[in-house]
Amino acid sequence: MNVALHAEALPPSAPAGNPVDRLTTMLRADMRQVETLLAERAASPVATIPDLSGYLISAGGKRLRPLITLASARAVGGHGEAATHCLAAAVEFIHSATLLHDDVVDDSDLRRGKPAAKNVWGASASILVGDFLFARAFTLMVDTRDIRVLDILSRASCVIAEGEVRQLAALGRADLSVAEYMAIAEAKTAALFEAAARAGALTGCDNVSIANSLGEYGRRLGLAFQIVDDLLDYGGMTSVIGKSVGDDFREGKLTLPVLFARDLGDASDRAFWRRTMSDRDQTDADLATAIRLIRTSGAAERTLEAARAEADAARAALAQAASGPFADELARLADFCVNRAW
Amino acid sequence: MNVALHAEALPPSAPAGNPVDRLTTMLRADMRQVETLLAERAASPVATIPDLSGYLISAGGKRLRPLITLASARAVGGHGEAATHCLAAAVEFIHSATLLHDDVVDDSDLRRGKPAAKNVWGASASILVGDFLFARAFTLMVDTRDIRVLDILSRASCVIAEGEVRQLAALGRADLSVAEYMAIAEAKTAALFEAAARAGALTGCDNVSIANSLGEYGRRLGLAFQIVDDLLDYGGMTSVIGKSVGDDFREGKLTLPVLFARDLGDASDRAFWRRTMSDRDQTDADLATAIRLIRTSGAAERTLEAARAEADAARAALAQAASGPFADELARLADFCVNRAW
Repeated sequence: MNVALHAEALPPSAPAGNPVDRLTTMLRADMRQVETLLAERAASPVATIPDLSGYLISAGGKRLRPLITLASARAVGGHGEAATHCLAAAVEFIHSATLLHDDVVDDSDLRRGKPAAKNVWGASASILVGDFLFARAFTLMVDTRDIRVLDILSRASCVIAEGEVRQLAALGRADLSVAEYMAIAEAKTAALFEAAARAGALTGCDNVSIANSLGEYGRRLGLAFQIVDDLLDYGGMTSVIGKSVGDDFREGKLTLPVLFARDLGDASDRAFWRRTMSDRDQTDADLATAIRLIRTSGAAERTLEAARAEADAARAALAQAASGPFADELARLADFCVNRAW
Repeated sequence: MNVALHAEALPPSAPAGNPVDRLTTMLRADMRQVETLLAERAASPVATIPDLSGYLISAGGKRLRPLITLASARAVGGHGEAATHCLAAAVEFIHSATLLHDDVVDDSDLRRGKPAAKNVWGASASILVGDFLFARAFTLMVDTRDIRVLDILSRASCVIAEGEVRQLAALGRADLSVAEYMAIAEAKTAALFEAAARAGALTGCDNVSIANSLGEYGRRLGLAFQIVDDLLDYGGMTSVIGKSVGDDFREGKLTLPVLFARDLGDASDRAFWRRTMSDRDQTDADLATAIRLIRTSGAAERTLEAARAEADAARAALAQAASGPFADELARLADFCVNRAW
């Protein structure tokens, strides 16, 4: 795969700009409701709660998961139902709670280009405000009054937490298989995309089969998103100066680019990965070596192909169940997630 | 208040043993269902999850909150409904998740006489398995199929998390008021007791007014429980050799005995509390001094009186809505929570 091929894969009718911005515009009225819910439900007389959550939630964040929720509902015939808005806000709160806990667990110092909340308010506040946001997500879901939505989201919450523990247990495991990596990505990331799309669709129409197709779209989109995220942590396909890279490497988190580089490399490459990722014995030059091995071994290309396969599957699932302007943008979103790698 | 007065306050008909043991016996069939749910829902192919949660949940724990849930349902006419069992298990999982996060936040090394889970599996695993148990609590609540139960428990979850953040923000604040202490105790402890009793009652009968009375019973019981817990952290009314004391003191957590000792003491006492709790400047002898000040100032007696007032209010609320053997034991449970101080 190269740049020319990749450009060719874009639908010829793709309008200017990117699908996140276009969905944000198309869903402006829905998003206004969601933003109101996010602000109202993060409110608390305990100042740390709005301060910390506002720092994370109001500042930045593409609102990707609420957009998927809202667009899924609209794509299958929804008309901006209140339940869809509650669900979209709940999904963003679950995501935010996960970020707060991840920062503590990963000991990350940066989030969205700013110091992580735990570096400003402390780890304890990040843990407890994360719990608060998760609890508020739960009340928002109950406010949908839809037991099917509650089933989907409560199960997804379990899968996400299970995936986080699985990832923790996999840290530094130089023998991690691609299947195990995919299981972690599916749980910690794709499960919420899937739940957002499936439950979103259910609030927009009453057809379980359509909702399941949207769920499959979300799941595949989530996998593509996570795979590309992991590639971007090694600079993606082209190095962008100034972009922060190497977090996963420093934490010993074995991701798809590393697994492919390990499998495609020779014995000395494998010794390198074992030393740096399992023994966590790293020098300043090692990250550059890691990036070089991922590029030269073909691991980066192979990772991108894996992401593209998920994006293709996402579009196929979507095409079975929905058409029209919202479905078109959701389809382009799948490609856009992969194109981020460039 | 003295020992004689306190003994007098016990109902003359109180049978031998304690109400926790008696409720455990009376509710044996219900508890078997709950234990099955706890084991099933803590299961996961990710070994850390059953290992860590089993360490906390199967070992020890009086199952006080599930017992309150089950007894509340039975006291108002329930017959061991499946929803009651799901709710009781959910309440225990919420409590367990809170304990796991508390251990990390408080940096406690012991829990129920054993090393805290975070000292065995690490803080990250404790945070993430706590999240998993909270998510599983959520699925159990959805399994009740009762939107009223979901309303009560989801709101309680928010109040609990908010109370934990409030407590964190209050650490070391030498000017904390009794009202602020009560607000923290109400949120972090009483809210779950209240939700357990109120939602438990709703699953046993369909009468909102009866359920509200049970909820008030639970809230007052939870306050009595927390106040006595805080007194026990300074050895209670009589020193029990070998019992671990002083956690709150070391953490700078201002609790009711300290607030009363501060308010009843002189300027030098207040300087002592400020130095040890706000400045966290403590020597080995300071805990003994703290315990002495709490006893000699009358703060211990006053704390016990506050707990007894809550227990009395708990019994009064209960008497308005329920009678019979389960209500009798719930009433005795309120006294038992206070009697622990001796």
